[in-house]
Amino acid sequence: MASAASDTPSRPFGLVIHGGAGNYAPPKVTPEKERAYRTKLQEALDAGYAVLDRGGPALDAVVATIRILEDSPLFNAGHGAVLNADGICELDSSIMDGSNLRAGAVAGLQHIRNPIALARAVMEKSPHVMLIGAGAERFAQENGFALVPNDYFQTEERREDLRELQEKLKNPAKAPRVSAEPANAFGSEHQYGTVGCVALDRQGNLAAGTSTGGLANKRFGRVGDAPIIGAGTYADNATCGVSCTGTGEYFIRAVAAHDVSARIAYQGKSLGEAAAATLAKIGQLGGDGGLIALDREGHVAMPFNTAGMSRGFRLSTGESRVAVFPDPK
Amino acid sequence: MASAASDTPSRPFGLVIHGGAGNYAPPKVTPEKERAYRTKLQEALDAGYAVLDRGGPALDAVVATIRILEDSPLFNAGHGAVLNADGICELDSSIMDGSNLRAGAVAGLQHIRNPIALARAVMEKSPHVMLIGAGAERFAQENGFALVPNDYFQTEERREDLRELQEKLKNPAKAPRVSAEPANAFGSEHQYGTVGCVALDRQGNLAAGTSTGGLANKRFGRVGDAPIIGAGTYADNATCGVSCTGTGEYFIRAVAAHDVSARIAYQGKSLGEAAAATLAKIGQLGGDGGLIALDREGHVAMPFNTAGMSRGFRLSTGESRVAVFPDPK
Repeated sequence: MASAASDTPSRPFGLVIHGGAGNYAPPKVTPEKERAYRTKLQEALDAGYAVLDRGGPALDAVVATIRILEDSPLFNAGHGAVLNADGICELDSSIMDGSNLRAGAVAGLQHIRNPIALARAVMEKSPHVMLIGAGAERFAQENGFALVPNDYFQTEERREDLRELQEKLKNPAKAPRVSAEPANAFGSEHQYGTVGCVALDRQGNLAAGTSTGGLANKRFGRVGDAPIIGAGTYADNATCGVSCTGTGEYFIRAVAAHDVSARIAYQGKSLGEAAAATLAKIGQLGGDGGLIALDREGHVAMPFNTAGMSRGFRLSTGESRVAVFPDPK
Repeated sequence: MASAASDTPSRPFGLVIHGGAGNYAPPKVTPEKERAYRTKLQEALDAGYAVLDRGGPALDAVVATIRILEDSPLFNAGHGAVLNADGICELDSSIMDGSNLRAGAVAGLQHIRNPIALARAVMEKSPHVMLIGAGAERFAQENGFALVPNDYFQTEERREDLRELQEKLKNPAKAPRVSAEPANAFGSEHQYGTVGCVALDRQGNLAAGTSTGGLANKRFGRVGDAPIIGAGTYADNATCGVSCTGTGEYFIRAVAAHDVSARIAYQGKSLGEAAAATLAKIGQLGGDGGLIALDREGHVAMPFNTAGMSRGFRLSTGESRVAVFPDPK
């Protein structure tokens, strides 16, 4: 570590993560649950930070961090993902390298344990950016990924959530506020447990990644913003790295992650101003959620317009925190 | 027409289209072929213009125009799309309404005659933006779309193209320049016949749409920029509408369509300056292709960095043209 750091003693490094935005508020989230979120967020942060601390690339930190969140049943990604209307987990992910704007994305996976790792393989081992469905899984097999049964992703808690949601939708009186209008098609009780990470390494390179199981009870091969480069994920050393979570449709329409970057590049905004302006635009469209962003100076932004967002950061300056509920005013 | 026009006599309306950028150059494109492209482009332009002229919405004009290009075997969209490595046509499309930033996108279709019409149905009849694969086709069926056999899309010329390409790839001496590097993975002989349209109606609303068969001989469920909102398609009344064509991977990485819009919104660039700057960025990344753009004042941009791009526009000012080769210097 000393040798890596000695070249550029003052250059910051570190990472920021999220585990989804949504209706994270007491009493819905019990103190026990909040503790569990915070513990897992800290574990993921520390794993990514360790990669960066020993001089590893930002991409490695993003993958190491997101793998931990994917493997945890607490978040809507990998193991513990929400179930679609047919009771199957369908997973989406994307990753981007801010040093060269290379990117990889996968959507509609049913058998890949760590979608973020496959997104990276698409970026590094194919000439393509985005692969979907069974084709993406054939690519995975040809590149040494093991296929896991879909059961691996399904937890009893998520199965119960789906049963409850489908039962409510059969009974309009008990149903959450749902309609064909995008503004409220997703149900007011929805929680978004998408996970994401943006890392800045000792070399000054940014990388960003996002992974999700998408919407509970989704139909028709619906894809949200998580695997869309520019919407759910973006990274450019010249501006920032961004990962989003929330009602994905609005983040796609606002091209949210790239919009944060564009406000910095073209408008000269600070990271915090740009992130807040993009989230405000999403709110104006009727969408909710949040995003995390990090720039090369180590500035962090984690705005959200939902009741809560599980989130955290750890920087080489020593600053570090994890949180689920809003910051105290 | 008189009544529709009398309210806003000076407001321009019209549309711009493309039928793909690529190696469109003599002698590869014979005079007969060039005439065929120009005739079909003019037919599509005139159909869209008629919609606008009678006061119809920009979205209707985009769909009417792209349907004609999808139905023509000349372009790589709908009937006449290129075949994937398995000899199947897989189609992608997207559409966006600049008046409210609503959008629809579909990818990996095998049985929908007019993908642009399904993209619009996703936008208008679902709470989602993007549906993929068999799920998208289930949504289509539930919304009254007929499924057509994949043979409908396949033409003998495209089948022969695939046989030739696969033969060349077996024989490295004859193979086009292809490698795992994104910069040249697509073969120097590639033509991009993606189609797109941006329309401005009498009400001052912009809409944009794109439709494609993607890359010939593609594998693994590869998806390019055409169905990615922000990459291949974007529209915002406040800035412009954009549709892109070319090596889709680079257009995704540059978030090309939204980048044009962002340069106008945040940097105050003109439409022509913004379009040129975005295309220059794609060239710097190693990508080639082109894009069409239109703003509310009726400014048109159609830059490309390939040998040719089939393209055209028709405006209420009386200006109109179609072209395949570069403009004379």
